[in-house]
Amino acid sequence: MATAEFTKDLCTPALIVDLDIVNRNAQAMLDRFQKFGVQLRPHMKTHKTLDCADIMTGGSRRCIVVSTLAEASLYADNGYDDILYAYPLPFDKVERCAELSERLSLFHVLLDNRLALRELKKRPLKQGKVWRVWMKLDCDNGRVGVPHYDPASLQLAQEISETAGVELTGIYAHCGNTYGCKGEEQIKAVAQNTTTFTLQFMEKLKAAGMHSPKSSIGSTPSCSHPVPDMAMLSEVHPGNYVFYDVQQSLIGSCRLEDVAVRVLTRVIGHYPHRNQLLVDCGWTALSHDGGGRLPTGYCIIEGHPDLKLLSMTQEHGRVESISGKLDFSQFPLGSLLSLMPYHACATAMMHPVYFVHSKGKIIGTWKPTRGW
Amino acid sequence: MATAEFTKDLCTPALIVDLDIVNRNAQAMLDRFQKFGVQLRPHMKTHKTLDCADIMTGGSRRCIVVSTLAEASLYADNGYDDILYAYPLPFDKVERCAELSERLSLFHVLLDNRLALRELKKRPLKQGKVWRVWMKLDCDNGRVGVPHYDPASLQLAQEISETAGVELTGIYAHCGNTYGCKGEEQIKAVAQNTTTFTLQFMEKLKAAGMHSPKSSIGSTPSCSHPVPDMAMLSEVHPGNYVFYDVQQSLIGSCRLEDVAVRVLTRVIGHYPHRNQLLVDCGWTALSHDGGGRLPTGYCIIEGHPDLKLLSMTQEHGRVESISGKLDFSQFPLGSLLSLMPYHACATAMMHPVYFVHSKGKIIGTWKPTRGW
Repeated sequence: MATAEFTKDLCTPALIVDLDIVNRNAQAMLDRFQKFGVQLRPHMKTHKTLDCADIMTGGSRRCIVVSTLAEASLYADNGYDDILYAYPLPFDKVERCAELSERLSLFHVLLDNRLALRELKKRPLKQGKVWRVWMKLDCDNGRVGVPHYDPASLQLAQEISETAGVELTGIYAHCGNTYGCKGEEQIKAVAQNTTTFTLQFMEKLKAAGMHSPKSSIGSTPSCSHPVPDMAMLSEVHPGNYVFYDVQQSLIGSCRLEDVAVRVLTRVIGHYPHRNQLLVDCGWTALSHDGGGRLPTGYCIIEGHPDLKLLSMTQEHGRVESISGKLDFSQFPLGSLLSLMPYHACATAMMHPVYFVHSKGKIIGTWKPTRGW
Repeated sequence: MATAEFTKDLCTPALIVDLDIVNRNAQAMLDRFQKFGVQLRPHMKTHKTLDCADIMTGGSRRCIVVSTLAEASLYADNGYDDILYAYPLPFDKVERCAELSERLSLFHVLLDNRLALRELKKRPLKQGKVWRVWMKLDCDNGRVGVPHYDPASLQLAQEISETAGVELTGIYAHCGNTYGCKGEEQIKAVAQNTTTFTLQFMEKLKAAGMHSPKSSIGSTPSCSHPVPDMAMLSEVHPGNYVFYDVQQSLIGSCRLEDVAVRVLTRVIGHYPHRNQLLVDCGWTALSHDGGGRLPTGYCIIEGHPDLKLLSMTQEHGRVESISGKLDFSQFPLGSLLSLMPYHACATAMMHPVYFVHSKGKIIGTWKPTRGW
């Protein structure tokens, strides 16, 4: 890809997105869960653009997850609806959530504690609307959520469903613990546990006489290798899969051929006395995510398995050879290298514009939203 | 600061900048080099805003360094001049550099090799202008530059000064190796070496019969603790000092009281079963810079030396107690914490807007430029 004709006119560093791979990844996820009879509610946090959201929703512009209100507003302002703000309700943003709830036909919030519920009660919605609330359940991931085994989880669900002006819309679990997996078998074991704990909790709700809210679990690894029991869930909510990255390939979610993004960079210096070359990609273009722990450092340098991105400063990357002397004649000053990022979410976040290509041509740009 | 009245109305996470500390840091650097009789050419890369550039230049809007052409354009479009693009000339950006050279009264480029010089020759400037070229000298920093001890350094300088349409304007060295120092004594040793190597090189130029170009060295540590010989340089070019950060305090460039920026964050979750609380600051608000290796993790949590920012995901930060059980009653849901960043350049880069305060009040916002 680095040698494709279109790349030579791009100013570097540049984030380039392969539209054909994006379409393939998005379609595969849509197909996978259509077969399961489970609603896909794709997460927008990786790209934060309108164009990619259209692709991930199959053009419906409905049923998405966001990680910030900046994303929620971008989508709400552009004809999207049924937006789930899957973030533990921040008390400073209740008013903005209320406005989105009143304006959209479906805007959902998430919480895992009683005080957040009290904040919602303090701000009843106008126009006879009710707050759509998802309760976050922690199924051994250990970030947000009431532990699934804790009796407090059932109590909180009960309290939500008994509160006037509030509806218990769903139960939400994130299986971020799939990120510690190596290979399909381990991923499926975590997916199974998360599914089992979530479904058991749904049974408890039923036994306690509560109406049946929706259930949703997600992470790119688990949704790339779903287990059959996931067919009993209402929804899933992966996000990274549209781009994938080196990390996902190491976990076993995808092959390297499925990674849709690269940072294009140019050689800007030759330093034979220390066997290094410099590229114009620092942490402002790639991020420090992954900590440089790959055998090839902070990324994979496409087509050059013997090169390592050793370190970065703000605008410079130091590249060296894993073994032996660098052949500098292979990498003339001004020539291009294509970096496959460790973590696409972190790399995309560094770019104010993404360059989209298809069949060897740049066909447009995508502009992400930023902030909160 | 976290408890200051003004913070309670800010949506979090937010980058807040203490204008009084910024003014003090900027003035101290201006005064220090005025006494030395050396021109301060402040670097804009840390903040990338117009407002802060005004402060760092003492209102002159002249004589600055930038790390990207996006910065160069921002400043050129807003009345700034005498701009040094201190980055090894990228061959894809020669035309943009030429336009800036033709448009401004002084726009400087930098190079460390003969091929870059050839690129400049291929694009002669209009209006009888000449390319203003700084040659990068590597004084044992090991990033960009011709090694100071290498005869090729003198040859390249000679070639630049003999090229028609090109002027050897200066010799530029970055003492980034001060970032490995602990304390004033070590910083001064590196500052002395860099200064000595640079001045020796200036002598060689003179002996070779070349006119006297300018000389400039810089880094925040060395310019915070300059050695007397630096008075023999023409310029210095530090940048980070206007904000400083935890890293600079550990190097010995500043005290913690000199750090001008914080990330303001809110408590969004209590998890007593794992002795952790969650805050709404992930790597999108702080960056992963520093790798979490501080005793307090990825930052210092102001006023709470016993707290550690253990890990971050995209929008979440996990905080725990360094010793013993967390007293959750001290950190109610919705309450604020103030994080002092490890690396201000990396943290500022994550924010589309900075909130500026003085004497307990928010007095405005600064908007940085992004991209390249």
